[in-house]
Amino acid sequence: MSGLGKESFFRLSREMIDFEKINADHWPEVWTILEPVFRAGETYPYPMDTSEAEAKAYWMNPPLDSYVAVKDGTVLGVFYIKPNQPSLGAHVCNCGYVTSPAAAGQGIGAQMCEWSQIEARRLGYSAMQYNLVVATNTRAVALWQRLGFDVVGNLPKAFKHAKLGLVDALVMHKEL
Amino acid sequence: MSGLGKESFFRLSREMIDFEKINADHWPEVWTILEPVFRAGETYPYPMDTSEAEAKAYWMNPPLDSYVAVKDGTVLGVFYIKPNQPSLGAHVCNCGYVTSPAAAGQGIGAQMCEWSQIEARRLGYSAMQYNLVVATNTRAVALWQRLGFDVVGNLPKAFKHAKLGLVDALVMHKEL
Repeated sequence: MSGLGKESFFRLSREMIDFEKINADHWPEVWTILEPVFRAGETYPYPMDTSEAEAKAYWMNPPLDSYVAVKDGTVLGVFYIKPNQPSLGAHVCNCGYVTSPAAAGQGIGAQMCEWSQIEARRLGYSAMQYNLVVATNTRAVALWQRLGFDVVGNLPKAFKHAKLGLVDALVMHKEL
Repeated sequence: MSGLGKESFFRLSREMIDFEKINADHWPEVWTILEPVFRAGETYPYPMDTSEAEAKAYWMNPPLDSYVAVKDGTVLGVFYIKPNQPSLGAHVCNCGYVTSPAAAGQGIGAQMCEWSQIEARRLGYSAMQYNLVVATNTRAVALWQRLGFDVVGNLPKAFKHAKLGLVDALVMHKEL
């Protein structure tokens, strides 16, 4: 590794991650990643008692394009890309990302976000919008900002956080 | 009318409008109101070639609660109320309003908006959010502002206007 700066090492480590379209074989691992997020009720609005069948039907079907981040045969994260609005607003996509707790702190969220932007462009989208970034999820807000997203709106008390009650949520946006 | 100021007359005229839950008997009139809006592609993102069957399936079923504004047996406008997000964001509703071209300029949009806020409170919502108010629809923007809505976000180039191309859209919000 001598002679490689921090940025070069980051680039090397990125190459070890594959991004694949989700398939039924990934699902059991994906569910172990999603389930704790639903149960916690701190970052996504889906029902806290979402069943595996409901989650599978949502994540594995249109209008979602869902992907997994895989390293050495292990799923480290999952995300989706979908149109944020019907026809005349369908050039803007919406995405959601969940990183495996076992892979926290390795930059998987950032890599999923960057790769999703490339894929979204390939799918024909011209912008990416997050509709409900929970304001108390400050790590996520900071990460999306670092990756070029602007806070374009603040929704007062828009999210019923399981522990904190009603908290604000942000609308974030990036032109692709 | 002597002794009645402008405000009193407004209140009297309001009382002539009934708001009813939409039903199948309303639909033919409702479709004559909705169809030109879809075909125009200037205010709502739904496909410009939306069929009557598609529109009916959307407007007459959950998760939408849809209503008509009726005066002397004629439908003058139609609107819906629905949760803007799943579970942990479902305390905020989203609405859409369409006034009959034949009733333009009579304040029907304002009355539908005001009545929808009362109904939304009754349904248990604590706030109302419009996700995609087309910025070039300046009359609508001014109306919602007059009725207490704040512009809480600006979405650059979020709407593909049939005549103007990509234009901004606004996120508007009111606590109920």
